Amino acid sequence: MARVVVNVMPKAEILDPQGQAVHRALGRIGVTGVSDVRQGKRFELEVDDSVTEADLQKVAETLLANTVIEDFDVVGVEIAK
Amino acid sequence: MARVVVNVMPKAEILDPQGQAVHRALGRIGVTGVSDVRQGKRFELEVDDSVTEADLQKVAETLLANTVIEDFDVVGVEIAK
Repeated sequence: MARVVVNVMPKAEILDPQGQAVHRALGRIGVTGVSDVRQGKRFELEVDDSVTEADLQKVAETLLANTVIEDFDVVGVEIAK
Repeated sequence: MARVVVNVMPKAEILDPQGQAVHRALGRIGVTGVSDVRQGKRFELEVDDSVTEADLQKVAETLLANTVIEDFDVVGVEIAK
């Protein structure tokens, strides 16, 4: 078994109203020095050895990210057999 | 400047209907071998050197995560001065 993480973030040219809302809220809690906040999604998948890299790419492209407006990357974080 | 990533995931004991929906959809695209999917959030913050670790903890606890139902971790990913 392995845990695979898929990070999905809005593309750089896409406005990110959720991130902007967080950014504006920082002043209210007295934190300055943050120039940008972007909000995306993180998926954690528990996969067995039958799942290939190609499968994971297909899952990310088809189910997890909207590739018109989002970039994704697939990261394997741990192997625990 | 540094990029800080804050990962926010539903606590293990919390149901995750979004992750479950993704998990059910895997069969439709012919991917087996995934035993669990959890969906959370990923925030990317561009911060300058005035922002302390304590500031980041406060931001994550106050604005980014609902600590009743979510866990978070703060990860510094790159320093580019």
